[in-house]
Amino acid sequence: MTIQLNQFLHSRKQIIENALPSYIEKLQAPHSLKAAMRYSLEAGGKRLRPILVLALLHTYKQSEDLGIATACAVEMIHTYSLIHDDLPCMDDDDLRRGKPTNHKVFGEALAVLAGDGLLTQSFSLIVNDQLLPADKKLRIVSELVNAAGAEGMVGGQVSDMEGEVKKLTLSELQSIHENKTAKLLGFSIISGAILAGAPEEDIDNLRKFAYHLGIAFQIRDDILDIEGNQMILGKPVGSDTINEKTTYPSILTMQGAKEKLNDHIDFAKEILNNLSVRSELLYQMCDLMANRDH
Amino acid sequence: MTIQLNQFLHSRKQIIENALPSYIEKLQAPHSLKAAMRYSLEAGGKRLRPILVLALLHTYKQSEDLGIATACAVEMIHTYSLIHDDLPCMDDDDLRRGKPTNHKVFGEALAVLAGDGLLTQSFSLIVNDQLLPADKKLRIVSELVNAAGAEGMVGGQVSDMEGEVKKLTLSELQSIHENKTAKLLGFSIISGAILAGAPEEDIDNLRKFAYHLGIAFQIRDDILDIEGNQMILGKPVGSDTINEKTTYPSILTMQGAKEKLNDHIDFAKEILNNLSVRSELLYQMCDLMANRDH
Repeated sequence: MTIQLNQFLHSRKQIIENALPSYIEKLQAPHSLKAAMRYSLEAGGKRLRPILVLALLHTYKQSEDLGIATACAVEMIHTYSLIHDDLPCMDDDDLRRGKPTNHKVFGEALAVLAGDGLLTQSFSLIVNDQLLPADKKLRIVSELVNAAGAEGMVGGQVSDMEGEVKKLTLSELQSIHENKTAKLLGFSIISGAILAGAPEEDIDNLRKFAYHLGIAFQIRDDILDIEGNQMILGKPVGSDTINEKTTYPSILTMQGAKEKLNDHIDFAKEILNNLSVRSELLYQMCDLMANRDH
Repeated sequence: MTIQLNQFLHSRKQIIENALPSYIEKLQAPHSLKAAMRYSLEAGGKRLRPILVLALLHTYKQSEDLGIATACAVEMIHTYSLIHDDLPCMDDDDLRRGKPTNHKVFGEALAVLAGDGLLTQSFSLIVNDQLLPADKKLRIVSELVNAAGAEGMVGGQVSDMEGEVKKLTLSELQSIHENKTAKLLGFSIISGAILAGAPEEDIDNLRKFAYHLGIAFQIRDDILDIEGNQMILGKPVGSDTINEKTTYPSILTMQGAKEKLNDHIDFAKEILNNLSVRSELLYQMCDLMANRDH
């Protein structure tokens, strides 16, 4: 990872984290609901999804201001999914990024509603964005539903739950992660490209790029659950093994999983060569996905 | 209630109930998720919110086809809210309209996700509606977020929960019901008017109309919880009294609540006189709200 990427990640994370609370604060809503929504939005994380939106605008040399609202919308969606995933009836997690999970602080009922609120509000950020023309807003909302809804993240979460109780094939595992993880990462990339006015051919290529990057992201997740450092990760390692969950290493061995990860990263980089612009930052993002330690 | 209204309610309920499953069936999503989403969508109910969308198009003599997708979207939002409200961490209800609640049939995790899926998908119905121009889609999505999100239904649900443990004033009670119930009923009316191309002055008036109609709806709900017939209602009566919940009758006495209900209905009807169209059907809807037995 070069200094340049580090600087980009650091500065854009700041921009996103400065912008996020404003969307909640201005709401005419119960104090407790806003507190619960803000708590999880402000609990940190890499902010990878919103940063990807800005990275695409940067790649196409467009003002990143165009992407702030959409970037915050995707972070709201990601955050709502974590709140609901952590609920006792789902993964029943007490800690997230080293802090008590939303329902541990605010109770289960408010956690459900904070998630519902973040999900609903995310659409408002896009449709009320004064910087965007109507056709782009509609296209982005449609992409967001596809990525986050029953055909994307929500569906992937259901398949993931159902997959926990059986041995999965590689293609079943891949399909789960495509829906659960890759599609929302893909939304960040596609929406950034749409906002930047990228050529349609580039958008098609970026959709394939996003798929490989998303699967690589998930393989790295599986690897980190075995080889990661608990302190750096901010969550316990080894839970997949304890839960006998099907993962890339469990199907392919650790060596095989690492090769698969590199394959997807290579595919992703190859696709970047076909874009109409130079995409140094996106290349570096690929390496980040392959080597990240948290 | 005249025959005419009954016929309208009956025939439009049929249209909505025929259309709803198609939006779920075409989804590329896990079978179990689609089954859980359909179960609650198809569990019956008055379909009042979608019918109101069509009633506005009817009032303005526009094709009701223009409203089918938006009508189904608001029914999906209403249905998701019922699924989440029924969860053990919320109202913990085992029965809804005489049938086991979603989590009783599909488990809590799938019920949470079915709700999330319905909420997300509802936006897709509007933005992908081929019959609507872009500006109307965006306006309707924005109205839907305001009605259903933190500033509307989700916020109202939080206030309602928090209000259960204390005595409320009439204005606190009114504010809760405005957010929890009236705004989504209002969305049906406003979106129907937007779809119909109603004059802006009418839309302003219909927003006030919707407020009075929504509060009247809720007062009638409180009255039915005391005077209603359990068989006709499809749910137990007396639960507000048992839970010592603040209701219109508990603040105003039964007689006072009935007067208040009539006041709101009178206000609503008065507003209808100022519309640019004759609105016989909406008058009849007012009487329905005042006298409904379920």
